[in-house]
Amino acid sequence: MNLLDRIQSPGDLKSFSVEELQGLCDEIRHLIIRTVGDNGGHLASNLGVVELTVALHYVLNLPDDQIVWDVGHQAYTHKILTGRKDQIHTIRKKDGLSGYPRPQESPYDAFAVGHASTSISAALGLAKAAQLEGRNNKVVAVIGDGALTGGLAYEGLNNAGRLHRNLIVILNDNGMSISPNVGNIARYLAHMRAGQPYLTAKGKIEKTLENIPVVGPPIQHGLKHAKRKIKGLIYNSTIFEDLGFMYYGPFDGHDLLSLLSVLRTVSAFSRPVLLHLHTSKGKGYTFAENNPGAFHGVPAFDVHKGLSENAGESFSDVFGRSICQLARKDKRICAITAAMQLGTCLTSFRQMFPTRFFDVGIAEEHAITFAGGLAAGGMVPVVAIYSTFLQRGYDQIIHDAAIQQVKMVLAIDRAGIVGEDGETHQGVFDAAFLQTIPNVTIYAPSYYDELREWLRVAVYEEKGVCAVRYPRGKSLYRPKEYVFNCKAYGLYGSTNAPVVLVTYGKLFSFTAKAKERLEQAGIPCFVVKLNRIKPIDPEVYELCCKAKSLYIFEEGIEQGGIGEHFLTQLIQRGYRGKAFLRGVKDQFVRHATMNESLHELGLDDEGMYQTIYDREGSTQ
Amino acid sequence: MNLLDRIQSPGDLKSFSVEELQGLCDEIRHLIIRTVGDNGGHLASNLGVVELTVALHYVLNLPDDQIVWDVGHQAYTHKILTGRKDQIHTIRKKDGLSGYPRPQESPYDAFAVGHASTSISAALGLAKAAQLEGRNNKVVAVIGDGALTGGLAYEGLNNAGRLHRNLIVILNDNGMSISPNVGNIARYLAHMRAGQPYLTAKGKIEKTLENIPVVGPPIQHGLKHAKRKIKGLIYNSTIFEDLGFMYYGPFDGHDLLSLLSVLRTVSAFSRPVLLHLHTSKGKGYTFAENNPGAFHGVPAFDVHKGLSENAGESFSDVFGRSICQLARKDKRICAITAAMQLGTCLTSFRQMFPTRFFDVGIAEEHAITFAGGLAAGGMVPVVAIYSTFLQRGYDQIIHDAAIQQVKMVLAIDRAGIVGEDGETHQGVFDAAFLQTIPNVTIYAPSYYDELREWLRVAVYEEKGVCAVRYPRGKSLYRPKEYVFNCKAYGLYGSTNAPVVLVTYGKLFSFTAKAKERLEQAGIPCFVVKLNRIKPIDPEVYELCCKAKSLYIFEEGIEQGGIGEHFLTQLIQRGYRGKAFLRGVKDQFVRHATMNESLHELGLDDEGMYQTIYDREGSTQ
Repeated sequence: MNLLDRIQSPGDLKSFSVEELQGLCDEIRHLIIRTVGDNGGHLASNLGVVELTVALHYVLNLPDDQIVWDVGHQAYTHKILTGRKDQIHTIRKKDGLSGYPRPQESPYDAFAVGHASTSISAALGLAKAAQLEGRNNKVVAVIGDGALTGGLAYEGLNNAGRLHRNLIVILNDNGMSISPNVGNIARYLAHMRAGQPYLTAKGKIEKTLENIPVVGPPIQHGLKHAKRKIKGLIYNSTIFEDLGFMYYGPFDGHDLLSLLSVLRTVSAFSRPVLLHLHTSKGKGYTFAENNPGAFHGVPAFDVHKGLSENAGESFSDVFGRSICQLARKDKRICAITAAMQLGTCLTSFRQMFPTRFFDVGIAEEHAITFAGGLAAGGMVPVVAIYSTFLQRGYDQIIHDAAIQQVKMVLAIDRAGIVGEDGETHQGVFDAAFLQTIPNVTIYAPSYYDELREWLRVAVYEEKGVCAVRYPRGKSLYRPKEYVFNCKAYGLYGSTNAPVVLVTYGKLFSFTAKAKERLEQAGIPCFVVKLNRIKPIDPEVYELCCKAKSLYIFEEGIEQGGIGEHFLTQLIQRGYRGKAFLRGVKDQFVRHATMNESLHELGLDDEGMYQTIYDREGSTQ
Repeated sequence: MNLLDRIQSPGDLKSFSVEELQGLCDEIRHLIIRTVGDNGGHLASNLGVVELTVALHYVLNLPDDQIVWDVGHQAYTHKILTGRKDQIHTIRKKDGLSGYPRPQESPYDAFAVGHASTSISAALGLAKAAQLEGRNNKVVAVIGDGALTGGLAYEGLNNAGRLHRNLIVILNDNGMSISPNVGNIARYLAHMRAGQPYLTAKGKIEKTLENIPVVGPPIQHGLKHAKRKIKGLIYNSTIFEDLGFMYYGPFDGHDLLSLLSVLRTVSAFSRPVLLHLHTSKGKGYTFAENNPGAFHGVPAFDVHKGLSENAGESFSDVFGRSICQLARKDKRICAITAAMQLGTCLTSFRQMFPTRFFDVGIAEEHAITFAGGLAAGGMVPVVAIYSTFLQRGYDQIIHDAAIQQVKMVLAIDRAGIVGEDGETHQGVFDAAFLQTIPNVTIYAPSYYDELREWLRVAVYEEKGVCAVRYPRGKSLYRPKEYVFNCKAYGLYGSTNAPVVLVTYGKLFSFTAKAKERLEQAGIPCFVVKLNRIKPIDPEVYELCCKAKSLYIFEEGIEQGGIGEHFLTQLIQRGYRGKAFLRGVKDQFVRHATMNESLHELGLDDEGMYQTIYDREGSTQ
């Protein structure tokens, strides 16, 4: 790491020769592979932009100049070059570096990211602010071709075209988002990638046009007219130019020398530029180059052996298998993913039912509205989206699903605390925002058999929009005495006990353990597990109304959440016992392991036990 | 109305001659102008599509064929032709026809709409469902150029390009959305509009290319190459073709004969087609043609005199003036609207501070993320969006505002019940979904002076995201004894009374009246008016904990709302009195006047009084 050691801040790069920059890229690749091998994280996307990041820091002057990294899962090189090399081994660990850009972490991070397609809009805001304040800095948005399938990116492009100032959008085109890319914009880019760099082609055509001999006056007029038309088309013919950008590309995003040259060129313009680069996800690490999808986000692994087989099944696997079983018997069932075929385990579905599988790109709004159309046409759409990304579809669930009074299943993956991806990715809002929507039913399975059953119920028994939300990863502790009864709620313990714990989803595993410890400590209690969190079965309120003390634990935002609704129903039914609610307080939950986060939130068995013991122990 | 009387269902159109169809258009225009004059409603947009709608119903066979009307404020002709002519006088009235398409109202309405940019995605879903079910019907999406600025429309186009089946997207291009159109896509369309119909131009250029003489072998090769390139560009050169559509247009959308011919042509293709029509908003009614913006959505008016001057100021006016006053003294303040400059009263701001005014088109997501960038760059963005449309920005408020820890003001217009626009437009979700977001503060002024003050506080005293939400229309009853104290809550009545009414926003006017009636009926009570609904001042809980009975009235969705949070805090603080919460139950609120809706929801003074009297009167 000889070269890397010379860099404390990006300014130190400026004295490097091109050969040294090249060597630096190798060292950075090495460090990234080792770091992700140790910590897990995003590998393929980070390896794809090493040269680009080095070139950007060489040509620009951060933090005066600003870079907005779309999605942000490609910013490791940027972090390494901006004074965080020595902490890079802490990335994605509790109290360590975030896996994503974060202005609170470094002044070199211009904007916090995690969700896709935001960079152009944010960069436009930064550029406009600079213009209004009379600053002359450069602002760069780096966006993948995958993120370009999101409507927000288009809204950003459409508005940025009017800016009378330099704004550089770098299209980091690797031909895939997380799953291989979809939609016509992808086909369009592939077509452009295959061609010569665009400006050169323009030049050639123009020259040829000049050389077309003009024979006699009658043809002359027609030709002149045609020439003008053709020129107009040539000069306004990429989608980016239609939206007001100058277009440059495609260039090889791993060729450092040409990158430096083109970046200098495009920095000089006083209007928005789109620079189209062709890069390879996973570049420089054979395992990842061969399978960039699998190496998008990975757990820790042996860098010499590649990824090991995923041991055991997860909630996502069970969802994927269950939905295939249902679809085999029912031709109405369609599956929709927003560029997360792998993550939501819909690969088998796609293979078995290709005509009923839809990967719509990173376009959650469209996913819901399209599903609304499918449903209005008589199909049964199952939309599988991570909790955090479903936030994008809130209006569409209201307007294009619930108001339509159509049948739609929302399969909400990664509901609850997600761990290492941190604050931009926590699935802690879905229960709260979904419960506000009329005509919506919500199930929260804690185990695989429950997930299977509620999916069946969602498809065959529920009307309207039915959400089934399940956690990231594998199922956790299940008490032997707990029997899944296929009812809207389950019980663990004797309902005669004076203390009741209410919870739902994955948290039941912790609540069950807490209950066992409390009983050992002489505090009799029972657990009510809500299987259906909207609407809640009124029987539950009757059961709870008799309790002396009631504790609700919720792996979701507290304000506006299920617990508050529960308590409100209870108090209106005359409950006069003690009540305590703990969910995620009014804060964003930082990255850490899932268990560390739950512990810190007081939502593991230890936290629950301690809280209840402190309050009940003294009165026993 | 001789011709109209012959039409009970669209099939009756088929026997009409073109002259009769033309006469029919005149009759429909007449009926629309009279109806909107009587009832209020959308005028300019409806007058713009009379010929198009007649032509569509003439060429297609509804309800087998399906039309999705984007936004839906142009569907009056469609309603008139599909068996609802005799009810058209009830439009937008309680229990009458909805102002928007509504499948529950008629089998001819394929999809419910109200928000913009959904039609392509929904139509794609309908078309795909038909394809999977082996039906051969046609699906048409009619979308304005304004709605094309929304990212969802782009997501729809990008996905629809892959469909191997006929889907007709009709771009109803009138050069404006509600405000004149913005962004480069608008400029692009204007450019296309000015040109010859596109296919003709293509044909001419192609012919000229064929005629280019080829002189000798060396040039020949270069020319051939150039020709191929040029052809490629010609055949793939509108943005719509880049996205996978066949493009036809532009054609005159008021020329019935050519409409019929081109609709027949594009119906015959087995792939997605974009048909570009040029129409005039307000066509056939001079007042509206001259001022289509003002005639977009109107109250009842005298059709012979045009619109009368708007009498008196509204909350929107006060917002518009206040923000100008603040911006005059503070150069950091920027105003952002999503195509609602008129509705949000930002016209003066635009005139006074053109460089700090941003109309981003119908692009609420971009509005928030762009504002996040502005804020990160040191500006103070004030984003003015109607409550119902802000639902589109939920994820962006979380991800691009709150997580950024930047300062942003959300000016939320039309918060609460909006009246005649009905279920797609009610502003009943914002308080609930905003309270889930960390780092967000929410104020709910009831009167103009409060709106002014909280805007000042939002700009100068609050950190992070601060929302100020205010109702549609004018301020209502204000008790003389009520004094605005600039605190987080206000009081009306003696806090020693045993019954307390809690509310916020416009509803205070009704709660105050109810309180007065209750006291006259011998039930002493006082009102707590929450000025800041998040976070709620803990003093309020102390005040309320002493009460014997507590009633919360909320002009917003109950489940997940402010009332539930309030009660949860209260019960955890040991409140053991009676409690009652009334908000909008788990349902969508249909169209009616604002007062009719509030009455039906039990949220006017009558409803509040009766509820409390029934519960308290007996125990006095």
